[in-house]
Amino acid sequence: MVTDSGFALRAPRNDKEIMSTSISPLAPASFPDMPPVDGVRLATAAAGIRYPGRTDVLLALFDAGTTVSGVFTRSKCPSAAVDWCRGRLKGGGARMLVVNSGNANAFTGKSGRVATKLTGEIAAKAVGCKPGDVFLASTGVIGEPLDATKFSGVMDGLVADAKPGRWNEAAKAIMTTDTFPKGAAAMVGMDRTAVTICGIAKGAGMIAPDMATMLSFVFTDAPIAPAILKNLLQQGVEDTFNAVTIDGDTSTSDTLLAFATGAAAARGVKKIARLSDPRLAAFRKGFNAVLADLAEQVARDGEGARKLVEITIEGAVSKKSARRIALSIANSPLVKTAIAGEDANWGRVVMAVGKAGEPADRDRLSIWFNGIRVAHRGERDPAYDEAAVSATMKEAEIAVKVALGLGKGRDRVLTCDLTKEYVAINGDYRS
Amino acid sequence: MVTDSGFALRAPRNDKEIMSTSISPLAPASFPDMPPVDGVRLATAAAGIRYPGRTDVLLALFDAGTTVSGVFTRSKCPSAAVDWCRGRLKGGGARMLVVNSGNANAFTGKSGRVATKLTGEIAAKAVGCKPGDVFLASTGVIGEPLDATKFSGVMDGLVADAKPGRWNEAAKAIMTTDTFPKGAAAMVGMDRTAVTICGIAKGAGMIAPDMATMLSFVFTDAPIAPAILKNLLQQGVEDTFNAVTIDGDTSTSDTLLAFATGAAAARGVKKIARLSDPRLAAFRKGFNAVLADLAEQVARDGEGARKLVEITIEGAVSKKSARRIALSIANSPLVKTAIAGEDANWGRVVMAVGKAGEPADRDRLSIWFNGIRVAHRGERDPAYDEAAVSATMKEAEIAVKVALGLGKGRDRVLTCDLTKEYVAINGDYRS
Repeated sequence: MVTDSGFALRAPRNDKEIMSTSISPLAPASFPDMPPVDGVRLATAAAGIRYPGRTDVLLALFDAGTTVSGVFTRSKCPSAAVDWCRGRLKGGGARMLVVNSGNANAFTGKSGRVATKLTGEIAAKAVGCKPGDVFLASTGVIGEPLDATKFSGVMDGLVADAKPGRWNEAAKAIMTTDTFPKGAAAMVGMDRTAVTICGIAKGAGMIAPDMATMLSFVFTDAPIAPAILKNLLQQGVEDTFNAVTIDGDTSTSDTLLAFATGAAAARGVKKIARLSDPRLAAFRKGFNAVLADLAEQVARDGEGARKLVEITIEGAVSKKSARRIALSIANSPLVKTAIAGEDANWGRVVMAVGKAGEPADRDRLSIWFNGIRVAHRGERDPAYDEAAVSATMKEAEIAVKVALGLGKGRDRVLTCDLTKEYVAINGDYRS
Repeated sequence: MVTDSGFALRAPRNDKEIMSTSISPLAPASFPDMPPVDGVRLATAAAGIRYPGRTDVLLALFDAGTTVSGVFTRSKCPSAAVDWCRGRLKGGGARMLVVNSGNANAFTGKSGRVATKLTGEIAAKAVGCKPGDVFLASTGVIGEPLDATKFSGVMDGLVADAKPGRWNEAAKAIMTTDTFPKGAAAMVGMDRTAVTICGIAKGAGMIAPDMATMLSFVFTDAPIAPAILKNLLQQGVEDTFNAVTIDGDTSTSDTLLAFATGAAAARGVKKIARLSDPRLAAFRKGFNAVLADLAEQVARDGEGARKLVEITIEGAVSKKSARRIALSIANSPLVKTAIAGEDANWGRVVMAVGKAGEPADRDRLSIWFNGIRVAHRGERDPAYDEAAVSATMKEAEIAVKVALGLGKGRDRVLTCDLTKEYVAINGDYRS
């Protein structure tokens, strides 16, 4: 991909382990090597939430002293699990994370609240902590009551079985329409040792609430105060998860939780408790790299996606304006279908710039596809080479750059193309 | 269609005259019987703008004294013809309308301005009026220079040939990806006679700027001051053309022009020059009915559409809030693909309500498909009959109603489903 951003880009290859006829052609080669995070143990189980015989529950156990923060969907109709987590963030501590696939526990009314409460109690009892230290996420079908008693049958086994470093199994347990498990890791030097940051994610639409909500969990052994963790998340999502769109649809369940066990304190790492801490910059860089990698993997697994698309805006009046224009292009069905059709249809890019409602001057616009300028100052580029453009549109990664010529605002978002497979996946799901 | 709105709804039938394998299954039975409008003469010609052998130019000639007003795309990157018309509305008078299909003259920079100027001069010369009395609209491919000299070869013939009442030919001359010509008419009693309102429209995406921009022209013989015509248009579009969305993409060329010849003055109809004129209410009703009919026909011809979808919102905090929620649902790819798949997926409707950013309380929401309540107060309706819902989703017209339970705000919009054909039409267009 033609990019100068901080995203970690990889050549797409096939992962034999998860190879199937339906795996995204944009999938990374394989699940990354991810080290254990001290203070985090993982286990998965098949609780029969919706489909028998597949793992559908993930348990993460945290050592005492683990801090937590989270960011959630902006939907006005959030899932019961989102409500639960929001209500338990104030304490700033966490001992358990329980995630299930198969049922999103969204739009389930009072029974949804009952289910989260019961799940919290079942989990807390198994390890002897408070229900308030249990964090929950659910993904899957919506509007169906979640039978939380199913957790009873597997919880003790999960707790007994939990072991460090089981990232691949963890990432698989939370998949729904995802075609590959998503993980990313970084190590950051700190106080003469190294701390570890590991994350997993799921999501293939952005977001189909009954099948493909976006969930992500990031874990570190660094000792970090809840307020700092919150700052890391809020700043980190802006150019990563918030800069990815598959279809412009926002989940009722989007959840990103970060857990810091502080276990690295045993190796001499002092707590990061202030934003002025000089060690924070390096940690933030590693943290953001993990978020960026996971976010890109979500785009690479976009439902029906055949092309990864990067939209870069330059010369806008501000970054905020650039973001709005970038999202207008990234969410335009006409731009996305043109790219699916390998058509360098810059006219549709102009249309999407025009409808964004942000300052733009038609006669200053220039547009590039994979570095080839196709439009310049409001007209077709006189040097436009149709053959070269046609060839580059066959690539699996398409970079669309728009220069507005108004100011210094710049931004980029990732998306994918809109294919007949997207319609098939989302039109045939329940049938 | 289950509706209590003012839209004129018809049973979809096939029109033999324009029957083809690709005609929208939602097309009206036939082009309506439309009377001539006194003071308006029409002619069409094949000027070879893009494709040889098809009519691609429409000329409307107006008697002296004709008033005009217009509303246009909100795009920040409008077409040259939109710029031209905006600049000529101040005078309030019109003698000619020249519309071409095949080339949108959009994103053509300086050459676009030259082309509109030349077209205006060629047309004005042919009838001896000022170029400022000529109104223009163009639809078709964008980014390609429009060769305005092609109008020279046909203009004298068009003027000589112009005759009243040729609505069907006029509507056909401006089609691009439309699968049927769109026309509507109304008669309104006034001053012991009747005035006539006739309109035509084209548009199948909302809007693909290189193929399917939305154009509409409305003509009446009533004598109406420009300021009143402006008021009629601005109020009229709100619940008609502005309440229709195919794909959420906004054209660079959207144009709606209204022309009032005033020829009915010869039959004793006095000029409507004040908003307080008691005759205005009846006229507005007829005028709005024409706009509503045309707007619905645009939705019925949505690219790849197999279902006409009406989204009604009740109980919002305001009409404005209801509109935003309705459009969020209508533009959601996940809602539209579900309807294409004949799936009463109310979870996706909840998702789209939630992402609209407007006040909504998940636990008060109720949702109906074609009058069957599927969700009530935040949960699946206990009385939900899967078989009845499955049956109604096979209908060609789907009414989705959402009750928010917060206030008295109410609104409705029309859209269509999102099918693989939409992707094919827009992904394969230039290939």
